[in-house]
Amino acid sequence: MSEHVNICEVGPRDGLQIAPSRMSTDDKLAWIAAMAAAGMREIEVGSFVPPRVIPQMADTEEVVRRAVEIPGLTVIALVPNLRGAQNAWNAGAHKISVPVSVSEGHSRANLNRTPAESIAEMGRLMGWVKAQPRRMEVIAGASTAFGCSIDGTVPTAQVVTVCAGLAAAGVDKIMLADTVGYGHPKQIREVVRAVRAEIGPVLYGLHLHDTLGMGIANALAGLDEGIRAFDSCLGGLGGCPYAPGASGNVVTEDLVFMLESMGFSTGIDLPKLLDARKLLHAGLPAEPLHGQLPKAGIPRTFRAAA
Amino acid sequence: MSEHVNICEVGPRDGLQIAPSRMSTDDKLAWIAAMAAAGMREIEVGSFVPPRVIPQMADTEEVVRRAVEIPGLTVIALVPNLRGAQNAWNAGAHKISVPVSVSEGHSRANLNRTPAESIAEMGRLMGWVKAQPRRMEVIAGASTAFGCSIDGTVPTAQVVTVCAGLAAAGVDKIMLADTVGYGHPKQIREVVRAVRAEIGPVLYGLHLHDTLGMGIANALAGLDEGIRAFDSCLGGLGGCPYAPGASGNVVTEDLVFMLESMGFSTGIDLPKLLDARKLLHAGLPAEPLHGQLPKAGIPRTFRAAA
Repeated sequence: MSEHVNICEVGPRDGLQIAPSRMSTDDKLAWIAAMAAAGMREIEVGSFVPPRVIPQMADTEEVVRRAVEIPGLTVIALVPNLRGAQNAWNAGAHKISVPVSVSEGHSRANLNRTPAESIAEMGRLMGWVKAQPRRMEVIAGASTAFGCSIDGTVPTAQVVTVCAGLAAAGVDKIMLADTVGYGHPKQIREVVRAVRAEIGPVLYGLHLHDTLGMGIANALAGLDEGIRAFDSCLGGLGGCPYAPGASGNVVTEDLVFMLESMGFSTGIDLPKLLDARKLLHAGLPAEPLHGQLPKAGIPRTFRAAA
Repeated sequence: MSEHVNICEVGPRDGLQIAPSRMSTDDKLAWIAAMAAAGMREIEVGSFVPPRVIPQMADTEEVVRRAVEIPGLTVIALVPNLRGAQNAWNAGAHKISVPVSVSEGHSRANLNRTPAESIAEMGRLMGWVKAQPRRMEVIAGASTAFGCSIDGTVPTAQVVTVCAGLAAAGVDKIMLADTVGYGHPKQIREVVRAVRAEIGPVLYGLHLHDTLGMGIANALAGLDEGIRAFDSCLGGLGGCPYAPGASGNVVTEDLVFMLESMGFSTGIDLPKLLDARKLLHAGLPAEPLHGQLPKAGIPRTFRAAA
């Protein structure tokens, strides 16, 4: 049996949040359902943030309520704080993803607080979550863990400190996020090792961007270090409104191709994933989609992992 | 001191050969000079093939004659056979690159002979080269070593057999070429190990394409296996006229960024390389250029290898 690698599709959240055009709620749901039909088991469907800040996410509550009806799908919502977590819980989200910036500059721009204040907020959030009758999993996203377009280089020790704080606050899992896509493979390896040495298996996965063309190579570096969970975005959409210079997420189609080719099972059917890409394009026709596999087509040599 | 990785820019040959428009000889030379000024020490400047077959390469003799005047630059020409080698030698080329297809289908389509016939031709070619008063280095390019769009999967044993034949024919070095870009990192590692076990240090480098988005990750896999030489193409141009479905070479700009970021010295200055890209665009304005680093710009966190 192949080893499993978990892919979480973040397109409906990270991909749509900076798109100049908006996708309708029905189109979002059709796209999410198509990805679930392709075997995607985890989808970050939206974020509970003020609609005046990110209007593309204004329908997140409805998207969550409808997405949790899709059989077998784990529905994730991004939330910036306790209030967002409460909204996500009320809507029925299975998991929440909570961004915490490692760098001061991004933390202030994105969340209007320091990393230390974010960790304190996480403590309150975890206290509330653990007191609920239905336990919602909490994933902390350690943003700008591999560089920041505002602060520049982010020291590994700073990543370790923030992750240790998040682990102490009781989060279930931590994703290291290369929010602006400045990371390179050697750095991925070093930071993963350093963080794992501090917090062990609470380090769960990588959220990578392809700003400098390193997305797939960085995923490979993470894979080599034992990472078995990745966020990615169909069509390589994505970016961060508060991270100047950031571009799209690592492309789901290309990532699945690499993983399955290498013998890692993702549970995702590539032809059906390309069908889901058609729905993304239909729902957001003005947005250019990225990815090499969709352009070239699935090669005749491809064999999915057994 | 950093470990050195050798980059050979193949844009003036692999990049231009399938471009629908033609670059003038003067523009080629200006572009080549700019890349040399950026620190590129090896450039494949053209191919000695019949102009009726690849008209973009009709001026290769003049390009070679003028390029060898650039101080410190090693000038490489692609040649398909002994006659091409003689033309390259007469023009003063320092090295030649001789493609030999591993797969039967690509061999017949590209070279109109079998791999075994190519190896026999290589024996004659090496005999002639070694008899000359000036020794021209011979690099064999083992094409379709990681898959073929005509034959499909290429067994590793077949790659080993062809490389062993080329080594026995006396070539100086062998580049394993992912001509159609079907390779994935696990395969790169396996084939590199198998070929090295057979021919040792005659295995020199990797020639990668980015058809399925694996180019940079495959370079990383090769690097992990001790490969220290790569072909690449500025702007990710390139493809093979006899390999349907193939797309551009791995992008030089992104590759140099990865290597230098990881502490491997390439001798190449990234800002000057981006200047050279401007000359490529000026000489071939209709051609879309690829690469993420050029789009995003060199990040403030970048430090070249010491």
